[in-house]
Amino acid sequence: MKTQYYTATSIDGFIADADNSLQWLFQFGETEGMSEDYPRFIAEVGALAMGSTTYEWLAQHTGFLEDPSRWEYELPTWVFSSRDLPRVDGPDIRFVRGDVAPVHAAMVEAAAGKNVWLVGGGDLVGQFADLGLLDEVILGVAPVVLGSGAPLLPRRLVTPPLELEEVAAYGRTFVTLRYSVPHPG
Amino acid sequence: MKTQYYTATSIDGFIADADNSLQWLFQFGETEGMSEDYPRFIAEVGALAMGSTTYEWLAQHTGFLEDPSRWEYELPTWVFSSRDLPRVDGPDIRFVRGDVAPVHAAMVEAAAGKNVWLVGGGDLVGQFADLGLLDEVILGVAPVVLGSGAPLLPRRLVTPPLELEEVAAYGRTFVTLRYSVPHPG
Repeated sequence: MKTQYYTATSIDGFIADADNSLQWLFQFGETEGMSEDYPRFIAEVGALAMGSTTYEWLAQHTGFLEDPSRWEYELPTWVFSSRDLPRVDGPDIRFVRGDVAPVHAAMVEAAAGKNVWLVGGGDLVGQFADLGLLDEVILGVAPVVLGSGAPLLPRRLVTPPLELEEVAAYGRTFVTLRYSVPHPG
Repeated sequence: MKTQYYTATSIDGFIADADNSLQWLFQFGETEGMSEDYPRFIAEVGALAMGSTTYEWLAQHTGFLEDPSRWEYELPTWVFSSRDLPRVDGPDIRFVRGDVAPVHAAMVEAAAGKNVWLVGGGDLVGQFADLGLLDEVILGVAPVVLGSGAPLLPRRLVTPPLELEEVAAYGRTFVTLRYSVPHPG
């Protein structure tokens, strides 16, 4: 069981641009890049967590608040927010706030041996990293430079460094980098 | 002949940390990572350009102002600065300011068919990119997250995207990514 941050990013470490848009990502077709990885990845996941910005982005771009069948995750999903967010009947979505540690424990239990996926954003993932709860960072690096936007992971993780576990290139577009995050004894 | 931005970077796209330090990079030994690439890279380079911050960093960390033999480049080097920087006799260092286009033309001529290396920083490279003068971005990605610092390339290069030309992993530390920058007709 691992707690994984799996996300697309620009070359320069932004997961959304300054307008909170992902159009730079969606210019690439579904057959390019990390969508090849995704089925293999999600098959090993048992629970998800995301922040309010990610939740609201999904609401706006998938329309799941109007049609709950458009919520694409069958797994239990924890949404961290200090605000009241719009809710919908059907999907297993659990709204939480505050310390990530007890939520992580609940996620691990729900995942029943499978992995925990931290969807984003970067600051939420940083809160898991601060407590030594982040095991892997898996990046689909899109071949674009954004220059500004939402940071991948606004933390300093230098000593010990991460460990490069896997590299996979997809044609001339995406490269997937998988790093493990050491937990010093 | 190509104009190349060749640099080390953190996973999240910083070329120096918030203290303008590279200690996060130097924790890796010379036998790890892109130092394997460097001899092959530099053999094809005929001219260098860098900004004042890079020049001052080199002065502080190599001591070439006190001992010119510590200047490590044998190739003609253009240093962009709007300020007067300390100078030294011996190395072929040419101080310039303003528009990068005429300097680029002079560098190409001096390189005599070899490549032009943009050492950094990011904003100087961005000025070349703005004019369509940047052909390749070659990154040695160190397995660290910095969270803040000097940005890799503070520009938006999205459409057309860059093209991934080469990926090389070095053990569990560095991965080198080489991208070409398209120049739409």
